[in-house]
Amino acid sequence: MGQTANFADRLLDAIDQKSSSVVVGLDPDVGKLPEFLIEKSQMRHGRGLKSLALAVLDFNTQIIDAVHDIVVAIKPQVAFYEALGIPGLQTLQKTIRKAQSQGLLVIQDAKRGDIGSTAEAYAQAHIGTNKPKAKLIFGADAITVNPLLGTDSLEPFLKRTESEGKGVFVLVKTSNPSSSEIQSLEVIQDGERCPLYEVVASLVNHWGQRSIGNRGYSSVGAVVGATFPEEAKSIRKLLPQTIFLVPGYGAQGGTAKDIIHCFNPDGNGAVVNSSRDVIYAFRKNAKMATQREPDFALAARDAALRMRDDINLALTSK
Amino acid sequence: MGQTANFADRLLDAIDQKSSSVVVGLDPDVGKLPEFLIEKSQMRHGRGLKSLALAVLDFNTQIIDAVHDIVVAIKPQVAFYEALGIPGLQTLQKTIRKAQSQGLLVIQDAKRGDIGSTAEAYAQAHIGTNKPKAKLIFGADAITVNPLLGTDSLEPFLKRTESEGKGVFVLVKTSNPSSSEIQSLEVIQDGERCPLYEVVASLVNHWGQRSIGNRGYSSVGAVVGATFPEEAKSIRKLLPQTIFLVPGYGAQGGTAKDIIHCFNPDGNGAVVNSSRDVIYAFRKNAKMATQREPDFALAARDAALRMRDDINLALTSK
Repeated sequence: MGQTANFADRLLDAIDQKSSSVVVGLDPDVGKLPEFLIEKSQMRHGRGLKSLALAVLDFNTQIIDAVHDIVVAIKPQVAFYEALGIPGLQTLQKTIRKAQSQGLLVIQDAKRGDIGSTAEAYAQAHIGTNKPKAKLIFGADAITVNPLLGTDSLEPFLKRTESEGKGVFVLVKTSNPSSSEIQSLEVIQDGERCPLYEVVASLVNHWGQRSIGNRGYSSVGAVVGATFPEEAKSIRKLLPQTIFLVPGYGAQGGTAKDIIHCFNPDGNGAVVNSSRDVIYAFRKNAKMATQREPDFALAARDAALRMRDDINLALTSK
Repeated sequence: MGQTANFADRLLDAIDQKSSSVVVGLDPDVGKLPEFLIEKSQMRHGRGLKSLALAVLDFNTQIIDAVHDIVVAIKPQVAFYEALGIPGLQTLQKTIRKAQSQGLLVIQDAKRGDIGSTAEAYAQAHIGTNKPKAKLIFGADAITVNPLLGTDSLEPFLKRTESEGKGVFVLVKTSNPSSSEIQSLEVIQDGERCPLYEVVASLVNHWGQRSIGNRGYSSVGAVVGATFPEEAKSIRKLLPQTIFLVPGYGAQGGTAKDIIHCFNPDGNGAVVNSSRDVIYAFRKNAKMATQREPDFALAARDAALRMRDDINLALTSK
């Protein structure tokens, strides 16, 4: 199977092989990193962004090595790398390569959305092409996108789901407290009333038709927060062929019971992301809290294993 | 007046001093740059992203020098710099510094929008703080943001309009063909029907109350496309204290007649952006088309002058 194989197929195969629906969010807030990593980096590289960015790279590398066999993808949140400037973006590039070399898919959490020619530039930068020898900037396998500007703004991403084996996750209902302000507004379409996120869901269904893979799912997925289980239930019914990327599990309050509504009745069709609860798990470990050099990677692995098992158990008892 | 002076005041003062409402979009599509600039850069730096990024920096620098006295701000479209990788982002940093050193405001066209902690990271990266000696990544004066995730997602930007003299432009009605798909959906709020962009406009009004400057305008502005004059008219009525950033003039089809609806009756309250029609003006100049080294900066200045005068004339005859 070549690299340009359908993204949905690649993701579903990984879920089956690993018996895991877990995605780990790599959102490196330097204030939460193990202090010893930063100190070590500063001893070698001095103070400044470069030191911080290299500490993040060290952190990410160890997390990836620790979880690669039990999670299907990593989801780097681009903002945290942009906040570390040029060295931060170099760390993001290296993190993506490292994850891919360990057999992980990479979902770039960029939430981009812009007009045509600009959207093309973003698509080129973040996912690019899977063609051999292509020059890549980030070269992630998939990207999150914002649908507010409509179809033409997503076309550069959508065409890559069809021809490049890339994936797109469209924001449908986000996990944050204010997400209902606009996303849940009641709209009238064709004489019917429904929440805005259902209109976006219909668009996702439409956009996804051109990239349905061998396993019956589209490479155009939906972001649906774990924190809104009722909404998730209704969106799931509208989108049987769509893979959900579910943020909000763990630190943001979503539980395994909440997220089962994001899966289809057969237990397929969703991946669940956790960031802080996995990568900073060492901070909640009583023994590690007193250690100068806590084994944060082991703590992350344990947290990811627990999360994998919790979700699998909830799905079995569904 | 310190740098943390209210952004709206700074922008309105610049408009008055220069008798200009023109913003130049620096969207460097390398396929449209003068070939000789790229060739020169490749002679020195070889082939690759670095050469292209340095050619873009050369291009931007000359454009900024040519237009700084007749335009109020530049608006770099971040995507085009991301598409050139790390060297592209270094060029973006240097372009911003160059523009600010020439007395121009910088509106970072990033259209970011994400949940709380992530939004904070974006705000830090793109606008940062105006405090002396602050470590800056991009350090633009203002940024465009996407409102789909609601109030909490914009708070890190809004707080900087109040305390850091920064500006925010919220997407209300974008200029692209598909913008109506979601932005113009009919919604029901408090029993009344209105298009979605009017709900967003009310939010913009609310978000802007905490940063009203001495001149009566808020530092929370609105992006309203020149390509939808009727919609602009109704949004203008809802937002008398809001500065509009108007894209879509020129290449996208908006004329001076279209954009007058984006101004208040007294001729204040809007800035108009043009990208391609200004920076690539040399391509439409019959004489320059045959030259090996066209004076693209002069062509850009001429185009910006014409645009400034066209808008001022339309406003006078309003």
